[in-house]
Amino acid sequence: MVGQALAAAETRIRLQTNSVEDEKQSRHRVVIVGGGFAGLYAARELGKDAAIEVTLVDRRNYHLFQPLLYQVATGALSPGDIAQPLRAILRRNCNTRVVLGEAVALEPAARRVVLSDGGTVEYDTLIVATGARHAYFGRDEWAPLAPGLKTIEDATEIRRRILIAYEAAEREADPARRAEWMTFVVVGAGPTGVELAGALGEIARDTLRRDFRSIRPADARVLLVEALDRVLPTYPEKLSQSARRQLERLGVTVRTSTKVTAIDDSGIDVAVRGEGSERSERISTRTILWAAGVQASSFGGRVAEALGVTTNRAGRVPVDSDLTVDGHPEVMILGDLAVAIWSGGKPVPGVAPAAIQEGIYAAKAIRRRVRGEAPQPFRYRDRGDVAVIGRLSGVADIRWLGRLGQRSGFIAWGMWLGVHIVYLIGFANRLVVIIRWAWSFLTHGRGTRLITGEPHLPPIKQPNRLD
Amino acid sequence: MVGQALAAAETRIRLQTNSVEDEKQSRHRVVIVGGGFAGLYAARELGKDAAIEVTLVDRRNYHLFQPLLYQVATGALSPGDIAQPLRAILRRNCNTRVVLGEAVALEPAARRVVLSDGGTVEYDTLIVATGARHAYFGRDEWAPLAPGLKTIEDATEIRRRILIAYEAAEREADPARRAEWMTFVVVGAGPTGVELAGALGEIARDTLRRDFRSIRPADARVLLVEALDRVLPTYPEKLSQSARRQLERLGVTVRTSTKVTAIDDSGIDVAVRGEGSERSERISTRTILWAAGVQASSFGGRVAEALGVTTNRAGRVPVDSDLTVDGHPEVMILGDLAVAIWSGGKPVPGVAPAAIQEGIYAAKAIRRRVRGEAPQPFRYRDRGDVAVIGRLSGVADIRWLGRLGQRSGFIAWGMWLGVHIVYLIGFANRLVVIIRWAWSFLTHGRGTRLITGEPHLPPIKQPNRLD
Repeated sequence: MVGQALAAAETRIRLQTNSVEDEKQSRHRVVIVGGGFAGLYAARELGKDAAIEVTLVDRRNYHLFQPLLYQVATGALSPGDIAQPLRAILRRNCNTRVVLGEAVALEPAARRVVLSDGGTVEYDTLIVATGARHAYFGRDEWAPLAPGLKTIEDATEIRRRILIAYEAAEREADPARRAEWMTFVVVGAGPTGVELAGALGEIARDTLRRDFRSIRPADARVLLVEALDRVLPTYPEKLSQSARRQLERLGVTVRTSTKVTAIDDSGIDVAVRGEGSERSERISTRTILWAAGVQASSFGGRVAEALGVTTNRAGRVPVDSDLTVDGHPEVMILGDLAVAIWSGGKPVPGVAPAAIQEGIYAAKAIRRRVRGEAPQPFRYRDRGDVAVIGRLSGVADIRWLGRLGQRSGFIAWGMWLGVHIVYLIGFANRLVVIIRWAWSFLTHGRGTRLITGEPHLPPIKQPNRLD
Repeated sequence: MVGQALAAAETRIRLQTNSVEDEKQSRHRVVIVGGGFAGLYAARELGKDAAIEVTLVDRRNYHLFQPLLYQVATGALSPGDIAQPLRAILRRNCNTRVVLGEAVALEPAARRVVLSDGGTVEYDTLIVATGARHAYFGRDEWAPLAPGLKTIEDATEIRRRILIAYEAAEREADPARRAEWMTFVVVGAGPTGVELAGALGEIARDTLRRDFRSIRPADARVLLVEALDRVLPTYPEKLSQSARRQLERLGVTVRTSTKVTAIDDSGIDVAVRGEGSERSERISTRTILWAAGVQASSFGGRVAEALGVTTNRAGRVPVDSDLTVDGHPEVMILGDLAVAIWSGGKPVPGVAPAAIQEGIYAAKAIRRRVRGEAPQPFRYRDRGDVAVIGRLSGVADIRWLGRLGQRSGFIAWGMWLGVHIVYLIGFANRLVVIIRWAWSFLTHGRGTRLITGEPHLPPIKQPNRLD
């Protein structure tokens, strides 16, 4: 009896051990490339599922809250305030491994991703969410002259350029050169361009008001140049008009129907579309910021090629209603890299809420598939858009409220604050951002306007006398 | 009567106007080179005096709170938390002008400073407070292999190296290489070295505990190498012993009487002094941090040369009891650049409180001289030293309390917190630092451990399999 019982117990133990082994062997391996909104939310959603093993690959060791990047570029926040280490976010997910690495190739037959260090990662399901970078419509030579805003390094470089421009103007006695230093051009009037231009207007009128002795920062010219005929072209026309008025109140000169034709190190050439005619114009400036046009990441292009899919003009990859690639149900593409079709043939917009929804959807779809169920198609829930322009001003378009949801000024600004605080990852970051914002609001200051990296002071044509 | 009164009033007005002009002409021009503790506190003290005109020249646009720089290097704080724009600090001082520029030469006969952009600044009194950089005892080839910690760029570079080392260890399957990545060596056991080593111990045991899947961060080795026979050599012996025990409790291996003889990219060679003998040893490591030895700034050397003064071995400039250079009562040298003699022939130490006292003293001495009075000699008030080692631990030596003021552990740690919060400039920064510290304390986390700059992933000899 005792002997039998012992033998039975032993078998049970052995079976359990086997099943742990089996389970490990049979765990569904999900590889996620890219730790932006889409990739991170997918990882979080998959992180508690014992039937799944997750590997998140990113070139960076942190998740970046990109919607607030322009605040780093304009000295209101520090990089550390809007970035959180991926390992810290996912540390409690025992089924998840984070790999700091650059994915360079996809081998779809072997179902594996190749990293730049020669390592490989095998997958059962692959999620590609490597996003987009800013693009210059084929004029890559403009990149060093007009930096865009996608990474922390971009943001600190833009911050450096803005601050150095005022410093150079303060030192420069030659009036023409001084005017060049005090002219700031933002190209592209989408949300990022509008937010940047609004912040530049505030810096000139408010933040730096009493900081200089030879120049009046309020004399700075901030131009927002847009090829289309209105700012925030994806918003309702009424809100575009309101945004324009709010920008002008901050001293920003808005130039719509104005296309950039050339950029060099002392200014830009633009073509201004009038009634039936076009005339060209030169704007002298030393600081040009690029907020027009994005291009899919290079790994995205390699994935499309490996899978034999044709991308659209911006390099984005078309996906089916379940966000998989046609003919490759094991590859999902999310976020800015994907062209998912929404209702009425419209593509899902390249915004953070869409990426978050896609990430969560992808995780749920994979879990369903692992359980042997078929996933529902992805449905984008468009909750609306909100952009901030400056102190107490902004525009919001909350779709489900219809016309009532189209708001300007103070209410839009408040909505924007709330939404951005709620979605910011990391509790300490949230508190720090609230404090910095409250402090900036009360003092009209921007505490983190540091010129980092080697200062590289610009050559001054005619230094003004300091004695 | 009325006519007479009017004429008298007019004369009075004219006299006033003249006196404003005269005053402007006769204002005493103080030029301060360097916006560290000494320069900044001098500028602040002079900022309200209408008889004086101040020009503060710095290569950087911010004041850096250097005592907390090691916290940026170890991911506890963001650069923006411990730096404040000089213009913002001094904006209310209407007699003060801030110049972003690099002082490259001194012309003592013409009483002017030459800037790198060709501009010049004339002075009646010059304050030179350009501080010191870390130095390699003539082995400058060690600089890229063992970065020191003086600037924000140094701090983010050190942070990058520490974090990349763990990432590389996680990816590396070769045991010898993995051990190299997981060995951290700090050279020099002064306050910075002790604080760095303590933080590295905490990162290994605490912060990263659950972050990795292939390695156990607690297996990391942290070595603190010091040529002298104890850590914190400027502290009382009892506190050195206590500091050593506290470091060892954090898992730090303390190697005193151990001198670095060579550094290459896979380790360091040391000479260990035993009883009458010396033996050499090799430590394999990929991460070496330099916290030994400082050297006066290069502008300091040029000033000494222009004034015909002989500097000491570290390039520091000897000054008289009123902090002026012998034979040049119009040139004051402050902070880490100066060798001021204190009581009993001891030099004033190169610490922040000394620099602050010297800055305030210099300003008061100048104001006295402008009023035609002779300044008192500088008297350094040594309030004591405090260094933090880790969570709830540190050492403090509060001199005026005598033996009672020699404290270890919790009390020293609390003193350190208080002092550093009080002296940190910028109210928002203070709040933000308090929040980050409180959050780190509660969660054992370090929120700002970002690898910024291009990631430059290290080559992995044998990438471990990820599938």
